[in-house]
Amino acid sequence: MNTRPRNILYAQSGGVTPVINASAAGVIAAARASGQVGRVLAARHGILGALTEDLIDTAQFNDQELKQLEQTPGGVFGSCRYKLKSLDDNRREYERLIEVFRAHEIDCFLYNGGNDSADTALKVSQISREMGFEIQCIHIPKTIDNDLEGTDCSPGFGSVAKYVAVSILEASLDVQSMASTSTKVFVLEVMGRHAGWIAAAGGLARRQEGDPPHVILFPEIAFDEDRFLAAVRRAVETHGYCSVVVSEGVRNAAGEFLADAGTTDAFGHRQLGGVAPTVAGMIKERLGYKYHWAVSDYLQRSARHIASQTDLDQARAVGEAAVEMILAGQHGVLAGIVRESDDPYRWSIRPVPLDQVANHEKKIPPEFISEDGYGITDACRRYLEPLIAGQAYPDYEPSGLPAYLRKPLVSLPRRLPEFSV
Amino acid sequence: MNTRPRNILYAQSGGVTPVINASAAGVIAAARASGQVGRVLAARHGILGALTEDLIDTAQFNDQELKQLEQTPGGVFGSCRYKLKSLDDNRREYERLIEVFRAHEIDCFLYNGGNDSADTALKVSQISREMGFEIQCIHIPKTIDNDLEGTDCSPGFGSVAKYVAVSILEASLDVQSMASTSTKVFVLEVMGRHAGWIAAAGGLARRQEGDPPHVILFPEIAFDEDRFLAAVRRAVETHGYCSVVVSEGVRNAAGEFLADAGTTDAFGHRQLGGVAPTVAGMIKERLGYKYHWAVSDYLQRSARHIASQTDLDQARAVGEAAVEMILAGQHGVLAGIVRESDDPYRWSIRPVPLDQVANHEKKIPPEFISEDGYGITDACRRYLEPLIAGQAYPDYEPSGLPAYLRKPLVSLPRRLPEFSV
Repeated sequence: MNTRPRNILYAQSGGVTPVINASAAGVIAAARASGQVGRVLAARHGILGALTEDLIDTAQFNDQELKQLEQTPGGVFGSCRYKLKSLDDNRREYERLIEVFRAHEIDCFLYNGGNDSADTALKVSQISREMGFEIQCIHIPKTIDNDLEGTDCSPGFGSVAKYVAVSILEASLDVQSMASTSTKVFVLEVMGRHAGWIAAAGGLARRQEGDPPHVILFPEIAFDEDRFLAAVRRAVETHGYCSVVVSEGVRNAAGEFLADAGTTDAFGHRQLGGVAPTVAGMIKERLGYKYHWAVSDYLQRSARHIASQTDLDQARAVGEAAVEMILAGQHGVLAGIVRESDDPYRWSIRPVPLDQVANHEKKIPPEFISEDGYGITDACRRYLEPLIAGQAYPDYEPSGLPAYLRKPLVSLPRRLPEFSV
Repeated sequence: MNTRPRNILYAQSGGVTPVINASAAGVIAAARASGQVGRVLAARHGILGALTEDLIDTAQFNDQELKQLEQTPGGVFGSCRYKLKSLDDNRREYERLIEVFRAHEIDCFLYNGGNDSADTALKVSQISREMGFEIQCIHIPKTIDNDLEGTDCSPGFGSVAKYVAVSILEASLDVQSMASTSTKVFVLEVMGRHAGWIAAAGGLARRQEGDPPHVILFPEIAFDEDRFLAAVRRAVETHGYCSVVVSEGVRNAAGEFLADAGTTDAFGHRQLGGVAPTVAGMIKERLGYKYHWAVSDYLQRSARHIASQTDLDQARAVGEAAVEMILAGQHGVLAGIVRESDDPYRWSIRPVPLDQVANHEKKIPPEFISEDGYGITDACRRYLEPLIAGQAYPDYEPSGLPAYLRKPLVSLPRRLPEFSV
């Protein structure tokens, strides 16, 4: 088996990002350039494709398509939300994975995902050793939430951060124009169920006293309606308008999500209304200001058109580094980004043992949130700013739309019996 | 009075756009280049600034700032939602306008707005003649709604159209990646209270059968819940997911806005919940699909970072043309865009008498909506496509944010007593 070049299986996991495909492109390009890798397969829909043996040979991408792959948001191979159970609860799934790896002569598994994927990669690494068919598992980090341990930042986050900072700046200029006779408060809801990294990025739009956003609501800070409304009123009275960024994960003092407060529509249907309309409703009700709100939802997570160059470079680099780690004989590691300096921003990539990483969640540190709880500190700005630097524009078609890859991908013939998950 | 060069007052009106400041920049640059214009003043907050004598001398912009002005979204001089009453109802306001014009030796009024502004420009033109201080009034078109008569399209619309087409394409790629185990339906709410032009633009992302968006809900087509849900189910069953663009102006058969259906939160507060969550709720309730929804709201209207080059060119050109019309002695006209051919796209600008324009609203023609009511026709695509062509990127700061103008603007000293509106 050691006489043939190693074959790689790459898979995407969990929520996708504007640049996750750049990591895929990095893997494929580095493998081709090395001359030491055999086939690079990709699992369709992440670990599910690995279990069901739905595999794609990336040899079907020519150089032009590889370039398009790097520029395309979403997960080109498909992702999934599927967490392998523990070894004790479902040993059969792990065994099946090894069977698929064996049937397709796969020696290396590159799993591109967040916290859960780190855990899966670690378990696959362990079980494969036990089963006598050792797989080199490398975790390629990805998450817009930026909550991964073992890496200074997570590819995907920088582009979402850029989208949020640019969007709140733009929308605030709009509100400011209209505030004398119309909308006085604008509320932008952003992602981040457990950590306020994305909300914090909105703070980058603010450079001096009076600049928007005037209030950021973090999941790390318990929501206090009276204090919040006082801050909104103060901004309107001082600056003529108020611009708010709210994380979807904001909770009240009792620890309940504001967005789960239980809105019902006219027919009595329960709705998960979003936290932006909830907060906007309070402002209208108690302060009487005319408001607008936006929920950017998947738009922020897929906005490849305004991707950060730093983020794109890092997403590609962790993919390339994973291949180098494979060739260097590493296994059970994360390709982690190390920050070497803030200004000028310098970074490198190193292997981090997965058992130090899996199942940890990196919260925003208290010293990154301003004393009043509604803004970011200079330390936070120093951390965030390099991550949104540079514009990695995709190519466009003459029609005015980005030239994203829309290639139907052919699966390899199956070699094993079917398997249901 | 004819011995001095003419002075111009420019004002912005109604909802702003990503490119309204490019029209302002076009006016200022053309006036400077002509050598035949004296001062170009701008009213702060539109017609309100003209009434209250809050005027800004645009001489305070140097060339670099003029370039930044063209790249900045929102309305740099401030806009307003304020419609002058009829002459009979409030003659005093019209007389005050003329007094302000006289006090500042203003000969020409350039009003940059939508339907209401066309009407105001026409009335000011008429009353000024009656009062013996004739003002040359030119209407510079602007509205993201694209519902102005007398012009083939309205500056501001093309950039919003591009934002919507790019955004629904990107978010759909995201949903498509996740659909096998997670979100199956994505709903994007866009602006357009009365006309479906912006929703129609979403259709540009679709190039072949199966492409997103799978359903567009237009305000022109009465909403039928059963038919809609059948279309969503069909898309999910055929393509694995469904991508929906819904106009905020969608109404049921009784003519009621869906978004006004009357949602209440847990505390019994009435909320204007947005039509996207309303529609998403129906999908969850009756089809059981996991969904996500986004409301882009002001983000779409201020997204200068993804402005259309065609739109920017036209916004600037109508501003320049307004100055040329002034110098050619025109008055009471709109600077209207004429489409000369679709492909290659060619356009020019001509003066259109305001009495043919004011108080008309251009609906989307029936032949632009597909037979099933959920998509756009080839004729619509031919109309829309040139309007989103080209990317007019703003300059960026090293920080990764656009270098938008954030200059405090100094008002001229007042020459008249105060006036309350």
